[in-house]
This record gives sequence, structure tokens and C-alpha cells, in this order.
Amino acid sequence: MMDICLLGTGGMMPLHNRYLTALLCRYKGNMVLIDCGEGTQVTLNLQGWGFKSIDAICFTHYHADHISGLPGLLWAISNAGRTEEITIYGPPELERILTGLLVIAYDLGFPIKIVELEYREYNEMPIPGTEMFLSCLPLKHGKPCFAYSISTKRGGKFDLERAEALNLPKRLWGELQGGNEALFEGRRYTPDMVLGPEREGFKIAYCTDTRPVKTIPAFINGADLFICEGLYGDPEKAERARSHMHMIYQEAARLAREGDVKALWLTHYSPAMINPKEFLGVARAIFPGAAAGYDRITKTLDFGD
Amino acid sequence: MMDICLLGTGGMMPLHNRYLTALLCRYKGNMVLIDCGEGTQVTLNLQGWGFKSIDAICFTHYHADHISGLPGLLWAISNAGRTEEITIYGPPELERILTGLLVIAYDLGFPIKIVELEYREYNEMPIPGTEMFLSCLPLKHGKPCFAYSISTKRGGKFDLERAEALNLPKRLWGELQGGNEALFEGRRYTPDMVLGPEREGFKIAYCTDTRPVKTIPAFINGADLFICEGLYGDPEKAERARSHMHMIYQEAARLAREGDVKALWLTHYSPAMINPKEFLGVARAIFPGAAAGYDRITKTLDFGD
Repeated sequence: MMDICLLGTGGMMPLHNRYLTALLCRYKGNMVLIDCGEGTQVTLNLQGWGFKSIDAICFTHYHADHISGLPGLLWAISNAGRTEEITIYGPPELERILTGLLVIAYDLGFPIKIVELEYREYNEMPIPGTEMFLSCLPLKHGKPCFAYSISTKRGGKFDLERAEALNLPKRLWGELQGGNEALFEGRRYTPDMVLGPEREGFKIAYCTDTRPVKTIPAFINGADLFICEGLYGDPEKAERARSHMHMIYQEAARLAREGDVKALWLTHYSPAMINPKEFLGVARAIFPGAAAGYDRITKTLDFGD
Repeated sequence: MMDICLLGTGGMMPLHNRYLTALLCRYKGNMVLIDCGEGTQVTLNLQGWGFKSIDAICFTHYHADHISGLPGLLWAISNAGRTEEITIYGPPELERILTGLLVIAYDLGFPIKIVELEYREYNEMPIPGTEMFLSCLPLKHGKPCFAYSISTKRGGKFDLERAEALNLPKRLWGELQGGNEALFEGRRYTPDMVLGPEREGFKIAYCTDTRPVKTIPAFINGADLFICEGLYGDPEKAERARSHMHMIYQEAARLAREGDVKALWLTHYSPAMINPKEFLGVARAIFPGAAAGYDRITKTLDFGD
């Protein structure tokens, strides 16, 4: 199972009832956070998933509304007793930005590993300490900005017939199913002897702030959940969104449709948009699986078998 | 009149219902902010006094819970359309800290004047662009930390008898009362001809984070309002407060009594303290004018005449 929580859904400035857009993804006891604007620790605290298990933090870009909550969050994680390394990912300039911001992060109880990415596509990098993988895609915004996807692997299906044919004690089945080798009566048994071909794992994609560039659909293709910005819902604000290098709902919905994703959560709303649900209809007319994200909306992915 | 608003009352970490301790002081259309932790812009937005008129920001010290909200606040002020310079005050290292934090504050519409203070006492420095004055006192905390007071001047009382004796047209009385000179029939008239001795203006004092050092009472003496930390209310936590270089309510109340202030607001509560009013009785037993501050508590000072 993978648990996903959209901690905030605001753009530009944090509001009391709408914190800044940030995504938390939990899988097998590990957590990855994407973006951390001012107030992310407040909504994370309300969500109650704890701070200690955050193994990685990924920044889309360095506008204040996506990163200004970092010093406070790191302090909260440290106070929660974490001692294991945290990996921080981001586009070029990450090291310079962190050197600046962390001037007020004193005495953290854990080391930080900085992974400053080149501004190009990356495919399924293993996230240290977790069983999750990170992919990145350059977007089109005022500053270099990444879309991210987080994915997991899933082993092949256990083949009972083949397993029985091996005449192994059943206690060793679990070893093989878990991906380990087993020794029995001098012979070596490998997982592929009882498992079918690798199956699709989970995949979520996160895309803000950007114009709808044409590389996005392939990047998000088939995602179980696509979290995408929609600064404005009103189609009449299309030009305004374009000039600010953002998107309206319709553009996000088109990406979701072209990317053939299973579900879409809109986010990163303008502070001036009081009711994000008002224009949801225009998104659903294009992609019926669209929903207006709200603070701490959660979803649990499982394989249903 | 001077309006005072305690924007937040939390210490260490911002909570949804208790933002970090920060004070806003408004006088004759100008505003001065003391401290700006994560979320200060959120509670300031709720308060509704606007962002544009903030002329100065004073930092007590550079622990994240007192300064991490600065980049976002500056951005909000810029978005509100401010173009006039803002003065930022703080103890030594201010320039280094700001150089770090402002790495994510792009394209601000106004200049910033950095006033890095020496770690010593200052008495009534004029705050540029305002009619307020700033005083500073070194405290005792883990890092160099200032107590601040903000004060105003008040001219002498208008003496009707003396004014009448001058045989001036009444339209010139206002000039003299306002502190200006006047010319009439070739003779120069000065304000002291119609005004009594200068009277006491307003004074508020702000004191967090610190142990109760003995220089505080003289510094806060006679303040209309003393805002003071009380990390814990429970007298049994005195040792814990001492070891963290903070205070309990009783210590704050003793300072208020010794400083002969008119009122005390407690603030900077531990996140673990659910109900700050619970131990208010122990503070009032020492200083009856003690109140438990809460987010956006306000007070208007006037001279009552």
C-alpha cells in the first residue's frame, strides 16, 4: 500500500485554511515530501503522520512558496528524534539555496545529503533508505522547475504450480517470494523459479508550477494519481495563467487525459480563488476523474488482490 | 493612539491554532513588527491590518521560530504594492542571516535597510519613516537576543492662558501646538511659548527568549504594556525552563512587578501547553495585571484626554 496526502493546496501565500502545496507519500514506513512552503509543518502536524520518517524532501523549484518552510520542518524532524540522514533533491542551485536557508537551522540531529540535479530528465532513481524511486522532468516556469514522479516496483506473481513442482519445504516459499535465494539439500533456488514477470508498481506524479508542456503526458503516463496545478479554474483567466507561467484547470485536465492517468487532484490555487470546486465541471468535462484537492486530502493505493 | 496586536503566542513550532510569537505595533499609520516566525504572514492576514505599512521589522534573535517567516512576509509586502524602504533591525550577524534567508526572496519591490546592532543597550533610536522610537536590551538566551521597547514622544500640554496673552490670531495656535514656529507681524513665535513641558508618550516592551536577567525591570519600567515570554505556566517546570534558557509565568510576573508596568501579556508558550490560562493564577498572585496572551489579542493605548 502507498498512502498519499496533499498537505496543502495553496499557491503564492499560505492561508489559515489553505496551506501551501506540498505532497507527502508514505510507503512501507518511509516518507517522501515534495515541496515545503511556509506552514507545511503546521499541516503535517495536523495530519498526524509524524515527522521522524521523512527520508527525502524534493523541491520542484525555489520560489518561496515551495521552500520557505524547510528550516522549520528540519527543526521539527530533529525534535522528533530523527538521527538518520535525510536526502534533499532539487534542480540546479540547490546547494546555494540550502546554504542560505539553513543559516537558521542549528544543531540538527541528522545529516543532510544534498542531491543537486542537472536540469534534465531522470528516470527512477532509487531514493536512499526507501523502496521508492524518483523521476524528474524539466517544466516551463519562471525558474527551473521539475515535475516529479514517485514509483515503486512490484515483483512477479507467485506461481503455485511451479513452486510445488520444486518439491521444496513450504517454509522456503516465502524466501523466494520475497526475492531471496534459498539453499535446500545442496541446491540453490532463485526467485525467478517461482515468480512470474515483474508487475507494475504504484506511480504518482506531481506537477507544479508550469505551463502545460508537451513532455508531461509521457512523463505522467498511467499514473495512479496525478497531482497538478490549476492556479485558476475560470477559463476566462487562461491568459492570466499563461502570463504568470501557470495553468488553468482545463490545461491540467487535458494533461491528465493525454497522460492516461487514473485520477487527477488539482492544487496550487490562487489565494483569490475562494471556492476551488466552482470550476471543477470544466475540468471534468475533459477528464472525468478530476477532483479539487483540499488540504490533507488522502488516498491509499493498493493492488486490490 | 497606538494599536498593539500580538499576532502569535507560540514558541518553538507553529500550530494551526497558535502561530509563533510576533508583535505588531501601529502608530499614526506606520507599523513596526517584532519577530517573524513561520506563519506570521498567515496570522497577520487574518488580523487584517494589511502588509503595506510595515516600515520596520525587528528581530530578537535568529532561532528559526523567530525569523523563518521573513522571506514569505517580504514577498507578501511586495505583492501588497510597497515601494518604500523597510528597515530591518537585529543583533550581530543580521547581515549574514539575511544574506542567507533572502536567497529565496526574489524581485522585491522595495529596498531593505539593514541595521545590524551591536550587542549592547540602545536608547530610543528613531525608526525611519515613523514617529516611533526603538530601544534594545541584551538578554540571556542560547544566542544573542534583544528585548525591545517601542515608544513615542508626546508634546507638552497647550496652555490657553499663555496663548491668549500672546494676542495671536487663533489660526496660528495650531501651528505652535503642532511643534512649528509661526511668524506674525514681524515677530517669531515658538512652540514653547504655548506648550508646557514634554509629557510621557506610549511605551510597550517585548521580552523573549530569555532568563529573567536583572536589567529587565529598568528597561521595561513604566511600560503601558509588557509582552513577556512564559514558556511554561506550571511552577514545577521552573528547572526545565531554566535549562532551556526560558522563563515560567512566575518569573515573567516578577519582572512586570519590579518594572512597575501597567499590564502584562504572557506569550511564547510551549507547544505542549494546551491551555495557557490554566496557570494564570500563579502569575496574577504576583502581578494582578497579568493576562494570558492569545493569537491576535489587541489593545489600543490612548491618553484618555
